[in-house]
Amino acid sequence: MKFNQRTHTCGELRESDIGKKVVLNGWVDTRRDLGGVIFIDLRDRYGITQVVFEPSYNGEAHELGKELRSEFVISIEGTVRKRPADTDNDKIPTGHIDVMVDKLVILNASETPPFPLEDDIDVHEDIKLKYRYLDLRRSAMQKNMLLRHKMAQITRNYFDEHSFVEVETPVLMKSTPEGARDFLVPSRMHKGKFYALPQSPQTYKQLLMVSGYDRYFQITKCFRDEDLRADRQLEFTQIDVEMSFVDVDDIFTMIEPLMKRYFKEVLNYDIQLPVKRLTYDEAMEKYGSDKPDLRFDLQMVTLNEAFKDSEFRVFKDSIANNGIITGLLAEGCGDFTRNQLDVLTDYVKKLGAGGLIWMRVKEDGLEAPIAKFLSDDEKQSIIDNMNAKPGDLVFILSGPKSKTLSIMGSLRLEMARRLDLVKEDADPALLWVTDFPLFEWDEETQRFYAMHHPFTSPRIEDIDKMETAPGEVKARAYDLVLNGHEIAGGSIRIHDAKLQQQMFKALGISDEEAKEKFGFLMNAFKYGAPPHGGIAFGFDRLVMIFAGEHSIREVIAFPKTTSGISLMDESPSLVGDHQLKELHVKVR
Amino acid sequence: MKFNQRTHTCGELRESDIGKKVVLNGWVDTRRDLGGVIFIDLRDRYGITQVVFEPSYNGEAHELGKELRSEFVISIEGTVRKRPADTDNDKIPTGHIDVMVDKLVILNASETPPFPLEDDIDVHEDIKLKYRYLDLRRSAMQKNMLLRHKMAQITRNYFDEHSFVEVETPVLMKSTPEGARDFLVPSRMHKGKFYALPQSPQTYKQLLMVSGYDRYFQITKCFRDEDLRADRQLEFTQIDVEMSFVDVDDIFTMIEPLMKRYFKEVLNYDIQLPVKRLTYDEAMEKYGSDKPDLRFDLQMVTLNEAFKDSEFRVFKDSIANNGIITGLLAEGCGDFTRNQLDVLTDYVKKLGAGGLIWMRVKEDGLEAPIAKFLSDDEKQSIIDNMNAKPGDLVFILSGPKSKTLSIMGSLRLEMARRLDLVKEDADPALLWVTDFPLFEWDEETQRFYAMHHPFTSPRIEDIDKMETAPGEVKARAYDLVLNGHEIAGGSIRIHDAKLQQQMFKALGISDEEAKEKFGFLMNAFKYGAPPHGGIAFGFDRLVMIFAGEHSIREVIAFPKTTSGISLMDESPSLVGDHQLKELHVKVR
Repeated sequence: MKFNQRTHTCGELRESDIGKKVVLNGWVDTRRDLGGVIFIDLRDRYGITQVVFEPSYNGEAHELGKELRSEFVISIEGTVRKRPADTDNDKIPTGHIDVMVDKLVILNASETPPFPLEDDIDVHEDIKLKYRYLDLRRSAMQKNMLLRHKMAQITRNYFDEHSFVEVETPVLMKSTPEGARDFLVPSRMHKGKFYALPQSPQTYKQLLMVSGYDRYFQITKCFRDEDLRADRQLEFTQIDVEMSFVDVDDIFTMIEPLMKRYFKEVLNYDIQLPVKRLTYDEAMEKYGSDKPDLRFDLQMVTLNEAFKDSEFRVFKDSIANNGIITGLLAEGCGDFTRNQLDVLTDYVKKLGAGGLIWMRVKEDGLEAPIAKFLSDDEKQSIIDNMNAKPGDLVFILSGPKSKTLSIMGSLRLEMARRLDLVKEDADPALLWVTDFPLFEWDEETQRFYAMHHPFTSPRIEDIDKMETAPGEVKARAYDLVLNGHEIAGGSIRIHDAKLQQQMFKALGISDEEAKEKFGFLMNAFKYGAPPHGGIAFGFDRLVMIFAGEHSIREVIAFPKTTSGISLMDESPSLVGDHQLKELHVKVR
Repeated sequence: MKFNQRTHTCGELRESDIGKKVVLNGWVDTRRDLGGVIFIDLRDRYGITQVVFEPSYNGEAHELGKELRSEFVISIEGTVRKRPADTDNDKIPTGHIDVMVDKLVILNASETPPFPLEDDIDVHEDIKLKYRYLDLRRSAMQKNMLLRHKMAQITRNYFDEHSFVEVETPVLMKSTPEGARDFLVPSRMHKGKFYALPQSPQTYKQLLMVSGYDRYFQITKCFRDEDLRADRQLEFTQIDVEMSFVDVDDIFTMIEPLMKRYFKEVLNYDIQLPVKRLTYDEAMEKYGSDKPDLRFDLQMVTLNEAFKDSEFRVFKDSIANNGIITGLLAEGCGDFTRNQLDVLTDYVKKLGAGGLIWMRVKEDGLEAPIAKFLSDDEKQSIIDNMNAKPGDLVFILSGPKSKTLSIMGSLRLEMARRLDLVKEDADPALLWVTDFPLFEWDEETQRFYAMHHPFTSPRIEDIDKMETAPGEVKARAYDLVLNGHEIAGGSIRIHDAKLQQQMFKALGISDEEAKEKFGFLMNAFKYGAPPHGGIAFGFDRLVMIFAGEHSIREVIAFPKTTSGISLMDESPSLVGDHQLKELHVKVR
């Protein structure tokens, strides 16, 4: 099909172009027939231009123009003119001109799309995913894809300017499952053997530090074969960063200006540096979360001291069992109805709390079901500690520390929602959470797991406790939190073969298993490994937040469903037995 | 381990820094003990700085300095001084200063590396690959990795400047083997079903055009489960490009300035644009290759016309069977010995030729074993056509066209090697090869295959021949050739559902199979697909050529062997049966 190459995009023509002969290529966005004149909004990625088919101007083009329907692909030649008086469209940059068509070539017809290609459409996501190539035409999706590209470019240019090298690490690697499940790839050339897809380039980036690359980054796909809760994908994209001869502060100093640049270039917003920091313990105690949303304050208050001599059995038990009593002040909520309080009580019970203690703050003291169990001193202490005023409501939870803090953290978020504490135009809240526990105890398997991963360095001063009190050892690990989302996490790594052995031991990984799985890394450490550390961003989530979306599927071109299916091409799919035979596997 | 963050890299200090207190971190590159004074060349990615331990300057540091060995990782504090007279090293930018050490911290010791970390070392590649983390420390490898990073940055910035969007396409996709074998990934959540790793993002990039992205690029990993001949990898990196509303010239116009930029920024060399073009037929006839090395001329000459009435049976048969008679002039090689000619005859015989006809050009005519079968006119015609002079040598091959031209093409390259026609400082030779055949006949399976892939558009004027004379149909396909390497290939694609069906039919792919494998693409074409086309670069090979290397393994951080093994981590490897059980597969 012969057609002329466009002279301009559909977003480009202005009043200064009036009188020019132009060629435009694009899609029919909308079509209006007014008194025999056909108006087409012609669309491409760059914008929309109105083109006009007038019988008196060019009868042939007008006749062919009658065939046009939505989403037809066309090429037109014509002359730019000023729009007739009162027909200007101030909403689009091309709104003061249109193009009188001399010649029309229909490059491709289109059937009627299964859903309108507009923003804010009410169509089931499965339909949109099946016809993803049409969904991607919607301007909201195009905006998201362009933003994703822009953020990747900002990232690459930032790291390039700071002497980082982007190094591609292998996708076909060794299976070393620890944490999530590996995706496996049978080897045809080596019967019975398998490659694994990387859960992260962790070992490779550490090896690159051993190799002296000093500063490495990569934007790369990672893979975890997990049951997908909510907003996860089997394959996801990571901004992976590693640096040599650094401590925690050096990582922060490198990453914060990148965040500043994202905010400036994407949202034209100036964030203040340095970014606020909280230790994991502080974050848990004040916000009941290791990724607190600090766009609103609403701090929790530990009340153990206030109740240290309490006769109230619930509090007494909590204190005796090394638990916690934590309070949350809901300002001005003293008039919550009994029904509202019941709903909130159910809410925390579903999360595992025994119940929810609440107290209305009155002019003359506290009014609460448990008031009778508390001394006057204790009541006054609550008011003082919570900084409560008449008309406020106080919530109290008590029990095992970590669980109770988490539940109160959830109640904190729930109250923020109910009280609309996060304003549309709220300033973004960035936060480093530091000093994570090195280990996490797993009740089910009765062993410690690495909270980040087994290459995370303990704090130097805690190394002695790795055997004696593993639960108390803090890691040189940190997360970067934005508006309550964990957007990045990292650590200073172990660079010493002996300490790495000690770590494997603490995790119950035998010398043999360690050698089998990570022998090459342990060996590498023998030849002059520098101190090093890094960080990795979940790129999908990062883009999602900056796009103002609520699902990462909105910022991924071809996502899969939560059950790992691509509805567009119906993968995964059955394959021919000859394919499996060659790979020496069969289905069982 | 406490150490001070470096104030400078090991490549940074100059005479202007003399007198400054500095901290350097790095590896002990070499160590010399001279009269009780220890000189260490301290190395990092950025360079080498000499640091000096003198007992009279700081006894404690000097004492600890005695422990240092090659590849120890250290942090030193000291004062920059001018090097003593006559000890300057003009070869390195830091060669006029050194650092007198006040304090030394040994950050990590090192065993003696299994091979010296120098350039041009004579170590078996298997050893280097096993200890890749050490091999990557060699400055030659670091230079290659930095070049690779730089070329990726140039690429991304170039396409970004030209309104291309980088879109990430899925790694877990549908298996549609056509051409090479797919790597398969068993699905845990969907028993008996499999994902495949992409052989290229071909279908996705076409869908992105349907989605209106207009200009797409991606630097991405692709996977082909092939028996690795010579210099291939199971996973390789592709610069993938696609554009809408374009024809062949538009692609060339977009890509040529990128090539210019590579040459300028990497080699500081100015190439002339536009890039030379040859059709596939011309390239085959003149150079016996679809990727001719044009750094030297040495053209083949078709002699069918000269021998159209020949009585010489070999030529007569060739002409009768629609074959070809092709000649190659080896200037000044008239004195090749019989032995040399025998070796060359063996060379072409190994490639499948029946024999090699040679003729020495003398003052009084041609001297050759077959001279007696040729008429005087024919002899004169050879001399004229080949533009031969006394002292030259003429080679002639005849037989089936494509095979004979290929063999002569190989002989052309062999002669270029023997005659050193490619000079060290030869100008790089870029070339577009165009108008490839659409189909390639496969003798073994007795069917046509797509020479590029089944989405390649035929030339408009050849569409009618797709059924009647498929072998004659030319494609709107092109390769970019640099110094005899194919560095990129692409085509204008089919964007019409009917023509795509016709193509599948010509390839013997049934409607059912087409629907099963590519139904989503065919469907997409129903909703307004624009004309589009693109190109893909083999990035590993591209970097290899610019690095002046002869193996792509030299420009890949963690490559696999030709049998697909990573010698460093020993993948592929056996995996636990519980892993396979979860994936519903077993080894057979």
